[in-house]
Amino acid sequence: MKIVAYRLKGRSGVGLVSADLQQVQPFDLPEAQSDLGAQALIEMQARGDTLPALLPAIALSEVQIIAPLPKPRRNIFCVGKNYFAHAKEFAGSGFDSSAKSGGDIPADPIIFTKVPESVVGPGAAIEMPAVSTAIDYEAELAVIIGRGGKGIAAKDAMAHVWGYTIVNDITARDWQSRHQQWHMGKSFDTFCPMGPWLVSADELDGTKTRVRCYVNGEERQNASTVDLIFDIPKLIETLSAGITLYPGDVIATGTPVGVGIGFKPPKYLQAGDVVRVEIDGIGSLENPVR
Amino acid sequence: MKIVAYRLKGRSGVGLVSADLQQVQPFDLPEAQSDLGAQALIEMQARGDTLPALLPAIALSEVQIIAPLPKPRRNIFCVGKNYFAHAKEFAGSGFDSSAKSGGDIPADPIIFTKVPESVVGPGAAIEMPAVSTAIDYEAELAVIIGRGGKGIAAKDAMAHVWGYTIVNDITARDWQSRHQQWHMGKSFDTFCPMGPWLVSADELDGTKTRVRCYVNGEERQNASTVDLIFDIPKLIETLSAGITLYPGDVIATGTPVGVGIGFKPPKYLQAGDVVRVEIDGIGSLENPVR
Repeated sequence: MKIVAYRLKGRSGVGLVSADLQQVQPFDLPEAQSDLGAQALIEMQARGDTLPALLPAIALSEVQIIAPLPKPRRNIFCVGKNYFAHAKEFAGSGFDSSAKSGGDIPADPIIFTKVPESVVGPGAAIEMPAVSTAIDYEAELAVIIGRGGKGIAAKDAMAHVWGYTIVNDITARDWQSRHQQWHMGKSFDTFCPMGPWLVSADELDGTKTRVRCYVNGEERQNASTVDLIFDIPKLIETLSAGITLYPGDVIATGTPVGVGIGFKPPKYLQAGDVVRVEIDGIGSLENPVR
Repeated sequence: MKIVAYRLKGRSGVGLVSADLQQVQPFDLPEAQSDLGAQALIEMQARGDTLPALLPAIALSEVQIIAPLPKPRRNIFCVGKNYFAHAKEFAGSGFDSSAKSGGDIPADPIIFTKVPESVVGPGAAIEMPAVSTAIDYEAELAVIIGRGGKGIAAKDAMAHVWGYTIVNDITARDWQSRHQQWHMGKSFDTFCPMGPWLVSADELDGTKTRVRCYVNGEERQNASTVDLIFDIPKLIETLSAGITLYPGDVIATGTPVGVGIGFKPPKYLQAGDVVRVEIDGIGSLENPVR
């Protein structure tokens, strides 16, 4: 199933997207729950509860689609340098203050976070910050955790995946480099476009799908998640070794080669640009830069 | 004022601590709010609302004190290498994979995060994880944001500080090093003891107070926050340059020299140890290691 969150007539809603992507059937949820998008539904399914009743369908064209988890339950977990070719381009950029001498391919997963409030939905503007012009895109498949847990073995990990969505891990490259730990340069307001909806794991195999990114229609990134250095089971095993995972946790799995900083000179985003991320089996996430 | 969060007869409460530290006067708050400790009170004050009525006092000895923000609104912001002597001991340990060549004193603030669910209260056990034995303490003054904002200038920053508490930034040193970005090694379950209460900024000048840490009664850390490399106004200015801050945000300001990894051989924590952090004007936070 595809779950979409939206605003309609000043209220939030969350519903099932029809197979033809034309309609949404809203779940009958209290507003305090629908304000958090799909979060309550994921928690219900993790507990084994049945989902709420569905209300009459609405045309998708009538609603304003927002991020499916507009305020995730805690910071989004993100994976750095998780495609071989991207790890090499990033090392070559000279911006990688954390690269160990001689090693551009990480031996172990690199995890940082983005604040929940950096999330914006499809069509929302990525705002150029006052304090940086080195703004870059990173197309990523994001895993949504269903049933939580700790010490999850890789062989069991896929049973903890509720599904997937698209994330654009916008980054201020100068802040990422200058401050060594990447958190701030990744967490500026509007730096986490997410959507257009969640797709459940029974509809999409996230371990082999294709991720593409276009800037003003020009293809910049195009890779398959089969090329992840650390695959989804390994990421879940590593994260859950010391940290209990919870329903609704978001793990952005890393970005392919082709980011702006990989070009010489870098092709940073500028006001007026439009970034579109496409993932096979999910759809596309397009955001203007303002 | 001092605000304490507690459990009593299976319910959560939050109240004012008396001047003699013997009693607590509970605020008349709905349980959904008191479950989040002082969060609702900080938000009320940030809005300019008056605080709720106080109920009859209870002896502090009758309640179980928990963390004053038992589940912070998002990941805790933490500052790395923010005392000169500690930055040098950390570089000397060989564990600092992020050190730029030749530079152990950071030129700009280093910010990483800990997940909200790593928070535990006074007396709660720091659990030795299954996947690391290189567990270290880090005594820190934590700033609690009152009124939020973005683009806050250093000269205006102290007006955004609600107050302070103590945080022990427990760290798995091998995970911190191996995974380059520090988030995972800082976020294991139980790795953020916090408390015993919040102290408002009108009662304590956090820019000049003393931070001490004892392991099994042996003094390990003892420094004044006047020695911070990046002081509290600079930290708030830097964080808020791109990220909107909100009431209840927690900023752990960094740890002084004397952490376990600074000794040769390292003095890591072991099951059975007791760690006590003291900050003048706040009190002490003691946690056993299990």
